[in-house]
This record gives sequence, C-alpha cells and structure tokens, in this order.
Amino acid sequence: MEQVERIGVSFEKNLLSQFDKLIQEQGYQSRSEAIRDLIRERLSRRLLEHPGAKAVATVSIVYDHHSTELMKKLTSLQHNQLLQTICTMHVHLDHHDCMEVICLKGKVEQINKMADQLLAQKGVKLGKVNIIHAGTAE
Amino acid sequence: MEQVERIGVSFEKNLLSQFDKLIQEQGYQSRSEAIRDLIRERLSRRLLEHPGAKAVATVSIVYDHHSTELMKKLTSLQHNQLLQTICTMHVHLDHHDCMEVICLKGKVEQINKMADQLLAQKGVKLGKVNIIHAGTAE
Amino acid sequence: MEQVERIGVSFEKNLLSQFDKLIQEQGYQSRSEAIRDLIRERLSRRLLEHPGAKAVATVSIVYDHHSTELMKKLTSLQHNQLLQTICTMHVHLDHHDCMEVICLKGKVEQINKMADQLLAQKGVKLGKVNIIHAGTAE
Amino acid sequence: MEQVERIGVSFEKNLLSQFDKLIQEQGYQSRSEAIRDLIRERLSRRLLEHPGAKAVATVSIVYDHHSTELMKKLTSLQHNQLLQTICTMHVHLDHHDCMEVICLKGKVEQINKMADQLLAQKGVKLGKVNIIHAGTAE
Repeated sequence: MEQVERIGVSFEKNLLSQFDKLIQEQGYQSRSEAIRDLIRERLSRRLLEHPGAKAVATVSIVYDHHSTELMKKLTSLQHNQLLQTICTMHVHLDHHDCMEVICLKGKVEQINKMADQLLAQKGVKLGKVNIIHAGTAE
Repeated sequence: MEQVERIGVSFEKNLLSQFDKLIQEQGYQSRSEAIRDLIRERLSRRLLEHPGAKAVATVSIVYDHHSTELMKKLTSLQHNQLLQTICTMHVHLDHHDCMEVICLKGKVEQINKMADQLLAQKGVKLGKVNIIHAGTAE
Repeated sequence: MEQVERIGVSFEKNLLSQFDKLIQEQGYQSRSEAIRDLIRERLSRRLLEHPGAKAVATVSIVYDHHSTELMKKLTSLQHNQLLQTICTMHVHLDHHDCMEVICLKGKVEQINKMADQLLAQKGVKLGKVNIIHAGTAE
Repeated sequence: MEQVERIGVSFEKNLLSQFDKLIQEQGYQSRSEAIRDLIRERLSRRLLEHPGAKAVATVSIVYDHHSTELMKKLTSLQHNQLLQTICTMHVHLDHHDCMEVICLKGKVEQINKMADQLLAQKGVKLGKVNIIHAGTAE
C-alpha cells in the first residue's frame, strides 16, 4: 500500500465554488481525487515537451481496407526496432473504412515519427496520436 | 470505385519547398496524398466545434486494477444508452496500472461527457479523449 | 479583500514528489498557487466546450502587409456587431510579414468564426485563436 | 515578387465537396488559398516538436493588478537575456483583473520556460502560450 500525505491548499471562495461546480458535473466524489487527476494530467502533458521521454501512446488510423498493399506495410512498420507495439485493435467503421488503434511504448519522438509514417501511407486517411502515460520504469 | 477530380493549386516557391521537405521527412510519396490528409484532419477537427456531431472516438484511461469496485463501474458506465461502445482493448502497463482503450460511437458532447465520468471514478489516474472520425451515415 | 478557504488534499507520496519537482522547475513558491493555477486553467478549457460562453480571446494573424486591400478588410471585419474588439497590437516581423494580435470579447463560437474569417482573407498566412478568460459578468 | 508554381492535386469527389463546403463557411475565395493556409499551419505546428527552433509567440497572462510586487517582477522577467520581448499589450478586464499579451521572439523551449515562470508568479491567474510564427532568418 502506497503511503499517503495530506497537504493544505488555500482558495478564494469564488474559485473554490466554481471548482466544486465543475467536478460535480464531471461526477467526482472528492476534491482530492479531482486535484490529483489535474496534476497527473499536467505531468503527462509535460512529457510532450521532452522528445526523449519514455511513454505509452495510442496511434489511431482510419484507412480504406481495400488497399491490400497497405495492410502489409502497416504490419511491417509496426515491426519497428525503436518502438514496442504492445497490441492493436481493429474496428470496422463502414463498408470502406477501418480504424486501427495501435498501442505503442517508446520515446515520445519515436512515437510521433511512427505516427507520421503511418499517416503518410497511401490509403491511410486520418491519423491521431494520444500520448497517455509515462512509464516510470522501463 | 470513387470518382477522382484533379484541381490546380498555386504556391510560392519557398512555401512549396518547405512543404516538400516536411512530407519527405514524414514519408509521403505524393503531394496529393499529403494535401488530402491535411484536409481530412481539418474536417475532423471541425467536428470538435459541433457538440452535436456524430463521431467515433477512443477514450483511453489509466487505472489501478486493484480497485475492484472500479471494474464494475467502468463496465456499467459503458452500458450508456446515448453512446455505443464498439470495443475495448486492455493493456497491462505495470504491476499496478492498466490502460483501457474504449472505442465509442456517438455525439461529440456525449463522448466528452463519458470521458469526464470515467476520469472522475476513484482509481482512474489519467483519461484522454481522441475524436477521430465523423461517421457520414449513422 | 476576497475571503479565503483552506481545504485538505491527500496525495500518494510518489505523485506529490513528482508534482513538487515540476512546480520547482516552473518557479512556483507554493503548492497552493500551483494547484489554483491548474484549476483555473481547467475551468478555462471547459469554456471551449460551450460555444455560447462569454470569453476574452486573442486572435493572432500573420500577413503580408503589401496586400493593401487586406488592411481595409481586416478593419471592417473588426467592426463586427457580435464581437467587441478591445484592442489590437501590430508587430513587424520582417520585410514582408506583420503580425496583428487582436483582443476580442464575445461568445466562443463568434470568436472562432471571426478567426476563420480573418484567416480566410487573401494575404493572411497564419491565424491562431487563444481563448483565455471567461468574463463572469458582461 | 516571389515566384509562383502550380501543381495538380487529385481528390475523391466526396472529399472535395466536403472541403468546398468548409472553406465556403470560412469565407475563402479560392481553394489554393485554403490549401496554402493548411500547409502553413502544419509547418507551424511542426515547430512545437523542435524545442530549439526559432519562433515568434504571444504569451497571454491574466493577473490581479492589485499585486504591486507582481508588476515589478513581470517587467524584470521580460528582461530575459535569452528571449527578446518585442512588445506588450495591456487590457483591463474588470475591476480586479488585467490581461497582458507579451510578444516574444526566441527558441521554442525558452518561450515555454518564460511562460511557465510568468504563470508561477503569485497573482498570475492564467497563462497561455501561442507559438505563431517561425522566423526563417534571425
């Protein structure tokens, strides 16, 4: 069980009541929980400013599955030596389009580069990166 | 086979050479492909400004899987009547943390609301929404 | 003088030490100040999800000041009836390019629309909106 | 007068009509203009991934002007040796709050650092950075 520490935080009344209103809308049950989430998110955003930081990310691409060449290239791109593809999820959007969500582990700059390369493939229509988590250890 | 139309686009030489350098780095094989991707991305971002638009999104959350209560709540939240959960993917990050990537279909505002509610759960440490695709038809 | 309230917030030790490291790098002198800023920023981001909310924003555009037609159009666009242009600042970037920073007050959706219209003008090369502040009163 | 080059771009009909609809809403008068703007914006976003790149940015902060100490610190921070403050604009938001828009020139990482330091000052309530332009020459 991780150790817990308690600190005091002072607020102007007006700011506190706006905050209470927001977290109630979001469904939080405690202010501590909401504040910790804000801090984790800030720490996570910080990562994006350090190209060399280790991270876990999802890269989501939408592509036309009729491009048979593409499927092979996507697979070979994922056998990248600088990144570890943890897993992928495949979603059928409509008759033409599929979405592939690829979960990657590696350096922020490598993740961004991989996302660029995936998007650049002929047949890939959309691509978005979501840097989510900074692995503390490997 | 979808019909293709060809249009002419004029560029200052300097802008064109910067563009060529960028798309070469990204790995594009044609300018048309790179321009189409920029346009698709712009159309997709446009969505975020229309809370009522239909979209496909991924919501990624990181949580401590020792919170047994949480697992039940996550499942019940996904049985939301205004959104369709298409599929989910579960990733073991380390001894404590898991990541769940949830692929949702529904209105942009409903997707954002669901993401808020997931993040607000006790035990959920990080949450990020990625609005990816606008379904043209339902 | 505004009333101040003090609340207690609990943290896992590890999260607290990462937070302390971050805010020291940023130059904060107290945790309370840093937490209040995170909350204000979250409240401010919330605004972007409500097209009808009142806000103050800066719209920054880069344009070629040799386009004489443009200068007239920029001025007439700022005499928009749904938005109040508070002030503008003009910066000479180089021989060709100027930057104009326009400070606007109005609804989020109107601010975004104005930014679109400014960017669409011939001669305007870049445009960025920064929604900054939610006026509580008009 | 800068030289202009013309290239051909092919589109699926459906994508082209969505694009035409978007740029008409935005007020563009030509597709070329809209495509060039998308490319400039992409090039500009690219900057954010290179901490060492030269840029022009606005940093907007909201603060309580009753903090007399703050005014002095803001001024001294702007006399930073690694950044050039080009100009600033001051806006009275309401009885308590002012907004200061600071236009800076320097490396992306230095601009972000300065924004962090400004936001960390006691009395500064909100701070946002907008990286806008990459100076090609100094």
